[in-house]
Amino acid sequence: MWPRDDLLELLGIEHPIIQAPMAAYATPALAAAVSNAGGLGSLGCGEMSPDALTAVCAELRAATERPFNLNFFAHPEPRRDAAVDAEVRARLADLYRERGLGAPPEDVAAPFGAFDHEIFSTLLEIRPPVVSFHFGLPAPEMVAALQDEGSVILCTATTVAEAVALSDQGVDVIIAQGWEAGGHRGTFHAAFEDFGVGTLALVPQIADAVGVPVVAAGGIADGRGIAAAFHLGASGVQMGTAFLSCPEADVAEDHRAALRAARDDDTRLSRAFSGRPARAQNNRYMEIMAQRRARFPDFPLMYALSIPLMRSSAARGDSDFRFFLYGQAAALNRELPADELMARLVEEARGLLYPA
Amino acid sequence: MWPRDDLLELLGIEHPIIQAPMAAYATPALAAAVSNAGGLGSLGCGEMSPDALTAVCAELRAATERPFNLNFFAHPEPRRDAAVDAEVRARLADLYRERGLGAPPEDVAAPFGAFDHEIFSTLLEIRPPVVSFHFGLPAPEMVAALQDEGSVILCTATTVAEAVALSDQGVDVIIAQGWEAGGHRGTFHAAFEDFGVGTLALVPQIADAVGVPVVAAGGIADGRGIAAAFHLGASGVQMGTAFLSCPEADVAEDHRAALRAARDDDTRLSRAFSGRPARAQNNRYMEIMAQRRARFPDFPLMYALSIPLMRSSAARGDSDFRFFLYGQAAALNRELPADELMARLVEEARGLLYPA
Repeated sequence: MWPRDDLLELLGIEHPIIQAPMAAYATPALAAAVSNAGGLGSLGCGEMSPDALTAVCAELRAATERPFNLNFFAHPEPRRDAAVDAEVRARLADLYRERGLGAPPEDVAAPFGAFDHEIFSTLLEIRPPVVSFHFGLPAPEMVAALQDEGSVILCTATTVAEAVALSDQGVDVIIAQGWEAGGHRGTFHAAFEDFGVGTLALVPQIADAVGVPVVAAGGIADGRGIAAAFHLGASGVQMGTAFLSCPEADVAEDHRAALRAARDDDTRLSRAFSGRPARAQNNRYMEIMAQRRARFPDFPLMYALSIPLMRSSAARGDSDFRFFLYGQAAALNRELPADELMARLVEEARGLLYPA
Repeated sequence: MWPRDDLLELLGIEHPIIQAPMAAYATPALAAAVSNAGGLGSLGCGEMSPDALTAVCAELRAATERPFNLNFFAHPEPRRDAAVDAEVRARLADLYRERGLGAPPEDVAAPFGAFDHEIFSTLLEIRPPVVSFHFGLPAPEMVAALQDEGSVILCTATTVAEAVALSDQGVDVIIAQGWEAGGHRGTFHAAFEDFGVGTLALVPQIADAVGVPVVAAGGIADGRGIAAAFHLGASGVQMGTAFLSCPEADVAEDHRAALRAARDDDTRLSRAFSGRPARAQNNRYMEIMAQRRARFPDFPLMYALSIPLMRSSAARGDSDFRFFLYGQAAALNRELPADELMARLVEEARGLLYPA
């Protein structure tokens, strides 16, 4: 049915398409629809409490009998640095003033915690079929314990060195995330804004370097990208942006409008929203904050300083400070329910891989 | 023989592989070997005088009866800007002093001219089968006259908007150059160092937007990339870095050593060598000169300031100021004569596209 089926067998799925977890945008309805259509639905849980996590896992189990994936951020505990906070507050003062927001907040607090023992214990209880990590991995004994409980472990790599490190740590599947990808780069070795390996170059080099299945991510929007990924050595794909246009995604109307108007060249990477590089629609805020080697508070502390500006733009209906995440192939998006999109993707990819 | 043959018919070639022109690295021997093996050999002629151009064209015709491609830079005439010159000279003063080179040169002169009427007239006389342009196109009447004389015209696009502009200007083939590509980006609308669309995202969007054959370039190193490019909508590929390791290429021993040691993540884009963004091995010079929105003299004036430093490094055998051009898939290079490399590429790609 597909040129390579190691990933399908490992995950227990029919089609080699993983819907990216997209914290704040993916919903249990979206994930369940993708899983029910034969792919792997995912939910970004990095910002959830243990109770919320237990609840969404139950909701997913009620909505699908197929495997699904819960995703977490494995960033290190952010360090507070008063000098950096002051520097960025100073850079933001004019923008806050312009928006009538007063002075930027003194308390640069994290809006959500890092992956901790409480979340880990909850996962051991709820035993999701698949658990994926972004920004590296939690402690090795945590990964091993989750695998012992039956969870398949996926993690993102953005370079060959990262992929080898993850493989050495026993990860079951490596998601090779290329430069084109929307949202946060999963980079955990380096964090340059202006650096990244394109998907086409990255996937074959990672496939040569590791023995586990490789999933291609970044710039894949339709069956053409899926078919290409198999030839590059991938066993499947992860697609995020393509699913943002599904009605099941929790995406605001203005963000949907931005997706409709998207161009290949209208995104940039920026650390100015969360503290880590993320690809989003270029806008006034990103232009103002772009400065080589600018310092920002650690992820996710920076959100404390950017969120008031994002809210101001949302309330006024302008895009100056919005965080419209999407990748470089958003212009190829189709506005279809997730099950119809899945059927199209499978048909397109198989039509190219197995011409009549 | 291949999934799409519009490019093959237009160019009169057997295999959909264009060896990139790579001024200063490609040689008539390399181009002839590629053409004789059924691909399209190319020669970068942007730095040649009319006499040299006439001579290499004759040399190529003696070495192959098949089509070949002569490539030119279509950058605008560089403007001299004394303030920018002074600014960059000041930034370079310490480096020049460190190397015992005295003060940076006062005369920031172009080491070669732009595409001009003399070169154009020569082309009308020598009538090469294929002429390709980088950094945009020369005047429309020049393009039309070359086509009237029988030359097929290729030009590089790095965004959909650029591809549409080229298509509107009557170009016969568009080379979709992705972020991964080594060497100079062909960008002619924008020139940000930290911006670029990955090949995997770029090719299908350009293929959807134009009616002429699209050639995928950037990050393609072996048959996997060629097979992937066809599924993305391309009618062929252009590969540069992969041919740098051929014995027929004019590549210095230390540059070959850099290619052997290349990693997926060890290149960066920099304007600090020529004035236009080029992807090369990251080194001390690029790190020092990297500064968001730094000003540089127009291409190719900047060479006047960077070449003394490059030569100093070459003489000392260090890599601090070298300009080792290569793309993000250089680690996949094979050291093979061009005809053997061509045979491998064809066999690999066809093995994936037409499994037994």
